[in-house]
Amino acid sequence: MGFQVTTDHLERLAIGAGILGTGGGGNPYIGRMTTTQFLAKGATVNVVDLADVPDDAVVVTVGRMGAPTVAVERIPRGDEQVHALAALEAYTGKKVTHLVSSEIGGANSTIPMVVASQTGLPVIDADGMGRAFPELQMKTFIINGIAPTPGALCDHYGQTSVFDHITDGKTFERYMRAVTIQMGGSAGYCFPLMTGQQVRDYAVPATLSLAIRLGDAILNAREQHTNPVQAALDVTGGQLLFTGKITDVERRLIGGFTRGLVSFEGIGHDTGSNLGITFQNENLIARKDDGTILAVVPDLVCIVDADTAEPITTELLRYGMRAAILGIPAPVQMKTDAAIASVGPAAFGYPDVPFTPLPGVYGASTVSIR
Amino acid sequence: MGFQVTTDHLERLAIGAGILGTGGGGNPYIGRMTTTQFLAKGATVNVVDLADVPDDAVVVTVGRMGAPTVAVERIPRGDEQVHALAALEAYTGKKVTHLVSSEIGGANSTIPMVVASQTGLPVIDADGMGRAFPELQMKTFIINGIAPTPGALCDHYGQTSVFDHITDGKTFERYMRAVTIQMGGSAGYCFPLMTGQQVRDYAVPATLSLAIRLGDAILNAREQHTNPVQAALDVTGGQLLFTGKITDVERRLIGGFTRGLVSFEGIGHDTGSNLGITFQNENLIARKDDGTILAVVPDLVCIVDADTAEPITTELLRYGMRAAILGIPAPVQMKTDAAIASVGPAAFGYPDVPFTPLPGVYGASTVSIR
Repeated sequence: MGFQVTTDHLERLAIGAGILGTGGGGNPYIGRMTTTQFLAKGATVNVVDLADVPDDAVVVTVGRMGAPTVAVERIPRGDEQVHALAALEAYTGKKVTHLVSSEIGGANSTIPMVVASQTGLPVIDADGMGRAFPELQMKTFIINGIAPTPGALCDHYGQTSVFDHITDGKTFERYMRAVTIQMGGSAGYCFPLMTGQQVRDYAVPATLSLAIRLGDAILNAREQHTNPVQAALDVTGGQLLFTGKITDVERRLIGGFTRGLVSFEGIGHDTGSNLGITFQNENLIARKDDGTILAVVPDLVCIVDADTAEPITTELLRYGMRAAILGIPAPVQMKTDAAIASVGPAAFGYPDVPFTPLPGVYGASTVSIR
Repeated sequence: MGFQVTTDHLERLAIGAGILGTGGGGNPYIGRMTTTQFLAKGATVNVVDLADVPDDAVVVTVGRMGAPTVAVERIPRGDEQVHALAALEAYTGKKVTHLVSSEIGGANSTIPMVVASQTGLPVIDADGMGRAFPELQMKTFIINGIAPTPGALCDHYGQTSVFDHITDGKTFERYMRAVTIQMGGSAGYCFPLMTGQQVRDYAVPATLSLAIRLGDAILNAREQHTNPVQAALDVTGGQLLFTGKITDVERRLIGGFTRGLVSFEGIGHDTGSNLGITFQNENLIARKDDGTILAVVPDLVCIVDADTAEPITTELLRYGMRAAILGIPAPVQMKTDAAIASVGPAAFGYPDVPFTPLPGVYGASTVSIR
């Protein structure tokens, strides 16, 4: 089917992608504003269904890497990924036909639309995570063995770098990160080159429309004075893990990541109980003070405002906030053995925490896009 | 005229390039051995005169960057620059026709021959420094405004990176250095793409043959029991600055460079006088204890064994060594205003030390290659 992106979609996407960012992923606001400007100037952004991508398509993910705090203070030009794309095409001699998001959670949900606005390329309704994760090798595409290179990076001045012959995702992440740091801590990327078949095999389908529907359901519930948190659960296939008030936030910058622990004192049904959530940019593990683990990465642990369901990112956590903690089952693509090795608790430094999947199905909803 | 490289040439080059390395530049031994192996297997390496390079030639420098100490312990594969060259050709769609050394001092004197052995490309009898310097922007080509990119880097595993749209040499150095560090501290490079006209305009001519003649003159003097130090001076157009015994070496690794001061107590004609030489990988300033400055970068300050004229690199300096200090006037290409801004004393952190050129002409000798 597919659809054409409107400014309303972008507003909803920003909320939905914020929730699916599970605390991290960067703020989608700038990408939303950039795309809105392009749309106002007459650009069109067409979204196509994953199933409709032809076998011989040439697909890339486009996104931004680096510290979200940098990208917020030093506004991207908006054409970094376009230059990265041009460098990749020059190197490979191939013309890209489709764009796909690398992570639907956070800022990278909007970057394909920023690029589509400038190139006219269609955006696939899918992504490589179904959420947000901090490193490049954590995309389903790389997890499933697609070589990360050739892949390109571009800085604020249009200065580019094209990597090639790197088969190991972690090595690619390390090389790209080193250049990104020299580029001022934030850069646009474009990788890996994939066929339509590969994207159909490995992408998490229909996540762009899921994020839009999620934002839409929340806005709708706010307008209708129904429960926005329940609306979010209905759309995502998630469950309410806990409701509480923030009593403490430990937050440190370690190795370029925001790591820490946020503590909640239960309210409502959870009165008398406490919950802690450890995070590394994204929320990783939700554990009650009796030791019971409620949810573990790669399942999505999302902290939202208890009343409005507005997503609360790691940076915004502060004492006294009343929050609902949502547990959304990870997409099946993130629960294979290979995926758990890359993005399970052990990959984040918790080898002793088993991954016990939440029940339910990621995005198990058929609410249509307004 | 030009000539075909022999193993004898390589032996002589290693000595000559060691002296022109002014204490740094890395050890030419490995490049010599690699080329020797290729020659033994039937490869030929043709050297062409700078004046004979046609206008429409496509020329690149090939070399190695990183910590010389790494390259010595982790022997390069020998095809890093060949892969970097292939990546650069893939990106630009151009075929390279000629190779030239980026720095005739130290290890990078031999890399073009390593690449020529594998590709059959001719090597130009010239280089981009006439000596050794620690950073990429310190080549005459970059000093004179040739864009450093497109330029490629390759690691020990054939993993490559092609940078483009970088016009500032220091930015290029910074980006390339960051990747080199991730690549394990040593990597092969290939940049910038130049026309024959550009290389003829900016290269320091006839330095490959100069280095070979220098090594030859020293070996000849040793055989003939004449004075090897005098032979070195005759070939290079240099003068004897001082003869002394090392009384102290201060050496520290700061910011990836070996920095320090070596102190000499005069012997022979210099008895009763003391000399200190400050270095950052390469020797920078030779100053007597009464404050008289004998020679300053970019002029070449070379420390050699007082009897054999064997070059003594920064790492090998130690108490008790008897050394001759040679002062060789820098090539004219390294004494322009633009060059002094890039490689004069201020560029190395000595803004108060004026550059007072040594008399004489770099390589003012007409001894022919044996």
